[in-house]
Amino acid sequence: LKSQRLNGISHRGRVLTLDSMNPNVKRVEYAVRGPIVQRAVQIEKELKEGVKKPFTEVIKANIGDAHAMGQKPITFFRQVLALCSYPALLEDSKFPEDAKKRAQRILEACGGHSIGAYSTSQGIECIRQDVARYIEKRDGGIPSNPDNIYLSTGASDAIVTILKLLVCGEGRDRTGVMISIPQYPLYSAALADLGAVQINYYLDEDNCWSLNITELRRALNAAREHCNPRVLCIINPGNPTGQVQSRQCIEDVIRFAKEEHLFLMADEVYQDNVYAEGCQFHSFKKVLFEMGPEYSNTVEMASFHSTSKCYMGECGFRGGYMEVINLDPEVKAQLIKLVSVRLCPPVPGQALLDLVVNPPQPDEPSYATFMKERTAVLSTLAEKARLTEQIFNTVPGITCNPVQGAMYTFPGITLPQKAIDKAKELGLVPDMFYCMRLLEEDGICLVPGSGFGQREGTYHFRMTILPPTDKLKVVLQKIREFHLRFTQEFS
Amino acid sequence: LKSQRLNGISHRGRVLTLDSMNPNVKRVEYAVRGPIVQRAVQIEKELKEGVKKPFTEVIKANIGDAHAMGQKPITFFRQVLALCSYPALLEDSKFPEDAKKRAQRILEACGGHSIGAYSTSQGIECIRQDVARYIEKRDGGIPSNPDNIYLSTGASDAIVTILKLLVCGEGRDRTGVMISIPQYPLYSAALADLGAVQINYYLDEDNCWSLNITELRRALNAAREHCNPRVLCIINPGNPTGQVQSRQCIEDVIRFAKEEHLFLMADEVYQDNVYAEGCQFHSFKKVLFEMGPEYSNTVEMASFHSTSKCYMGECGFRGGYMEVINLDPEVKAQLIKLVSVRLCPPVPGQALLDLVVNPPQPDEPSYATFMKERTAVLSTLAEKARLTEQIFNTVPGITCNPVQGAMYTFPGITLPQKAIDKAKELGLVPDMFYCMRLLEEDGICLVPGSGFGQREGTYHFRMTILPPTDKLKVVLQKIREFHLRFTQEFS
Repeated sequence: LKSQRLNGISHRGRVLTLDSMNPNVKRVEYAVRGPIVQRAVQIEKELKEGVKKPFTEVIKANIGDAHAMGQKPITFFRQVLALCSYPALLEDSKFPEDAKKRAQRILEACGGHSIGAYSTSQGIECIRQDVARYIEKRDGGIPSNPDNIYLSTGASDAIVTILKLLVCGEGRDRTGVMISIPQYPLYSAALADLGAVQINYYLDEDNCWSLNITELRRALNAAREHCNPRVLCIINPGNPTGQVQSRQCIEDVIRFAKEEHLFLMADEVYQDNVYAEGCQFHSFKKVLFEMGPEYSNTVEMASFHSTSKCYMGECGFRGGYMEVINLDPEVKAQLIKLVSVRLCPPVPGQALLDLVVNPPQPDEPSYATFMKERTAVLSTLAEKARLTEQIFNTVPGITCNPVQGAMYTFPGITLPQKAIDKAKELGLVPDMFYCMRLLEEDGICLVPGSGFGQREGTYHFRMTILPPTDKLKVVLQKIREFHLRFTQEFS
Repeated sequence: LKSQRLNGISHRGRVLTLDSMNPNVKRVEYAVRGPIVQRAVQIEKELKEGVKKPFTEVIKANIGDAHAMGQKPITFFRQVLALCSYPALLEDSKFPEDAKKRAQRILEACGGHSIGAYSTSQGIECIRQDVARYIEKRDGGIPSNPDNIYLSTGASDAIVTILKLLVCGEGRDRTGVMISIPQYPLYSAALADLGAVQINYYLDEDNCWSLNITELRRALNAAREHCNPRVLCIINPGNPTGQVQSRQCIEDVIRFAKEEHLFLMADEVYQDNVYAEGCQFHSFKKVLFEMGPEYSNTVEMASFHSTSKCYMGECGFRGGYMEVINLDPEVKAQLIKLVSVRLCPPVPGQALLDLVVNPPQPDEPSYATFMKERTAVLSTLAEKARLTEQIFNTVPGITCNPVQGAMYTFPGITLPQKAIDKAKELGLVPDMFYCMRLLEEDGICLVPGSGFGQREGTYHFRMTILPPTDKLKVVLQKIREFHLRFTQEFS
């Protein structure tokens, strides 16, 4: 660097170059919006400009973006948001009374009765109270304290904030963070950015991507040789793997965290997205408290939720919250200080979150429509989850676990050796080569399994189940045909 | 740490404590929402609970939050936002045609025509185009490329992102960042968080808080002894100091940045907030390009803007953008990768930004109302800027520079030695003691100058000029009386 500095003065090169930038940022990767998605956007432009392709549109099954896939917003939510945005509409008789009541309550909690005012950095107090009540109801009455609720800019924001608090030390004392493989790449990206040590534990593909305590222990013991493991991250229901953890598994994880003195991070943004028979969402908080005070008074945890997934799929509003359990009061003060630097989460997203945790009640005029819309989304998703597993498993060379929950399937694909060689020749990882070919030939945008992590020598892709049922059937059929064609070409 | 780890296993203390957390986070300070504001919130609660105080409400003049101070939103902006939130309203004849047209255009640019879809991480393309056209118009035709525009979650988000790219190196090679003193504490907070070296250059209080190149050079040379200075941050119009930089000053700064091989960060979020006779906003971009290709082809720069200030004051929406100039293409790719991890800025904030950069035109139905509302806000602010300076300068012991722009005044206060001693006895910095007393006695919440930085031995506070004129007069009068009382008490 010193020589570069001296050179800089004579050369007058740029101040900021690839060589002179933050090396942690260089290490960040985020496949969900990586090169394949950039190529997809390019292809879309080419199609618009009239370039001939073997397809007429690009189907982006790379990201859990429900509205982009045609899902309609929940009417009640958007009515309230319109009322909050333009309160003159409160005089309009076309809006139902419960929507107006909700909007008025939110506006009264805003500075100057405007969603254009900053909120407190932790989030609007009455919304945090509603979140706490929602959690209590969800968890069968286990108490939740609004002071432990922090609203956030989507769940990502809160996840990164908690990781930032936790990461310290140098060399062998550097904080290690355990994440599942396959993982959602926000985690690896945040850890690279913070310079933390990523500790991989592998989910068991042969057992529906379940989490295995023996594997957790193996990963932890290996990591203790070179870093200070302090954090265990869980995604349930799973992204990208779609599994739903059993109550027993969650209990085992909590016991493990306590024994091994780990801070638990429970990413539960898909808590309403459970489809498979016999599967049920159990919150880590609930299980923790059911395990008794020995656990509920000691295990430190943060749980994350978002407005972007479930039945509402309101990604653009960037709403979310986290609940912290057993967080040191001094650390809480530091957390509040840290979030205050960014002033506050977007207030429209906070308002939306309030509606999600406090939807229309049976005695309110919007209830029937709300329930109809909610049920329709969730039952369609359940149908698409089944359909996806079913069709993929008819393809020789594709192995697909049941999509028990969340919005994704992560099937394993068998690639011929010649395809693997060809990919290497092109400098691509094999499943990236596969997905790029699929994109160029059929206009379908998936994310290669390598973007999420996978066991050495295995290959996968992540696909969302969000396209409308008819389109999803076409997509599945096209992938089927592509896979057979691709396999044949390289056999 | 190692001993603590071993202890952890026997003691079973918390995983995350003040001692075991990220030390950079501990160093973060953010006075605008610091202890004094927390006390203000507490007092508000006490008032609600019926606790008797010498006042009936807390006036928060600590933060530039226009709507919280009673400023009304721009009607056109909120109409479009309501239409975007609940597109069924597009059928409603009560909404003007231009608002509908704007909403339709934004919705068409959204995935699935919903602001609930994620946008691209850089921001919606047609909005970036509108931003580029706005900049071109503002800068008298100097071209702006939408590819250089990055939408953000308020300006803070973009500022932190650029700093993150720039910070690297260890020890004497650690990146140094030059910031003005007094500064807006986002900068010091971000630098602490990133572990960068903060290099203070002092604004000249005796010359209307102007920036002096000799002082810049002094600060830079001193810093070169212990770090690698690579970045120069400017806030114009100034926060907290309210000065507006002359064209000549900006030219000098740009020349300095080029000579000294510094990356320029121009925080221009108050670009519409210029009040003083003879003052005018000059963008760094415009001056850079007017200095000729020797400068415009080489000086690396990022300029920041926001929806939170100016005449709209829509803080809660967290809208903003930055324009980058001469950024290395490889670094641009890294920047896009980095912002993609957080998926996208809030889409309602993006929509709002679109309206700010592309407001109603003279031939459109909403133009007259829009102009009336905009002018009313800005002329009232100008009046309040004059009033503030005038009244403060009648108080012995308060010295107030003209509020040429932005939304704040940062007067110097003379504190009696006995007050300084008393503060020290209480473990408070003297201007914190002063502001706390003012809060307890009169319910007025200001931020102590120490939260922004000031020359050793001088004392200040920051006050926004945002309260409604009548209330502002009361506030100024109360501060006047408090100051006299305080001075007397400690004389």
